[in-house]
Amino acid sequence: MKRAEVLAAQEGARKALAKAGIVLTPEEAANIEVTDTGLNRLDKEGLELVTYINTERYCAKELVIFPGQTCPEHRHPPFEGNPGKQETFRCRHGLVWLYVEGEPAEHIQARVPEESKPYYTAFHEIVLRPGEQYTIPRNTLHWFQGGPEGAVVSEFSSASRDEFDVFTNPNIRRITAVED
Amino acid sequence: MKRAEVLAAQEGARKALAKAGIVLTPEEAANIEVTDTGLNRLDKEGLELVTYINTERYCAKELVIFPGQTCPEHRHPPFEGNPGKQETFRCRHGLVWLYVEGEPAEHIQARVPEESKPYYTAFHEIVLRPGEQYTIPRNTLHWFQGGPEGAVVSEFSSASRDEFDVFTNPNIRRITAVED
Repeated sequence: MKRAEVLAAQEGARKALAKAGIVLTPEEAANIEVTDTGLNRLDKEGLELVTYINTERYCAKELVIFPGQTCPEHRHPPFEGNPGKQETFRCRHGLVWLYVEGEPAEHIQARVPEESKPYYTAFHEIVLRPGEQYTIPRNTLHWFQGGPEGAVVSEFSSASRDEFDVFTNPNIRRITAVED
Repeated sequence: MKRAEVLAAQEGARKALAKAGIVLTPEEAANIEVTDTGLNRLDKEGLELVTYINTERYCAKELVIFPGQTCPEHRHPPFEGNPGKQETFRCRHGLVWLYVEGEPAEHIQARVPEESKPYYTAFHEIVLRPGEQYTIPRNTLHWFQGGPEGAVVSEFSSASRDEFDVFTNPNIRRITAVED
């Protein structure tokens, strides 16, 4: 991913968070994490994050998902004696379509990214609007997409270790390389 | 505590949360927890809370503390194999003065509630403004007071079991009785 693209996504995320009424410190605002999961099509598959705290016991983040942007399907498996990350998504602004394992919707409202169709398999649909939340059990496949305005989502969870995430798409690399 | 007082505090908390840009579901808004810790002087010693999620692994709440209102000094001890609650306070709106065990401030900015002076012993001062946060180690004495405008504070933590909290003031009862 090009540095200019990262900077533009950070600026977009700052605007979305401000619109949601969320205040960041200058240091947090300057260091918003942008990941394209190594697929190099950030506008289609990627995510913007601010991690407030991540201890061995709990974690809290803000997630920004742009309109039509998708966080690819993944699960949080057990690691180092931890049973796997359990997480609660609470929508703060906008609308997010969340898909988890379970009874599939007849017609899902999100659009599966064209280039990655085979790697989306969970179609139980949950729609989250501001104030609504959903808890994803540990080790459960899930993915989500920003609605027409995108969304800001607070994530409350047990300890987060992104490097252990298992993505359905084998081409994905969670740690993003940035080029000048 | 009288029911009318609870209703007034809930209304005050709804306004404070709305001012902070935080959206609640109608059910959450109707059920904001109000505790006077059994001291029957809610405006001086008490707290308003919304618990979003509380599992065996993690917990997330919004706290509302009115101007000059104090959450009395307490700690979260070990319980049932849990080492004791660790918690992160993140100020979302207003200003909160937080006091924890450690090097005491020469002059603290909060005013210790007159009726309860002997029961406040931790005076290491932390001032939290919007976007600022502090993590309180498990089993550590702490108390906090709302600044001139009060404050809305997000609390991210390990599992919360309020019934095990140990307050410095032996007259405190965490579970509040409401009379008509």
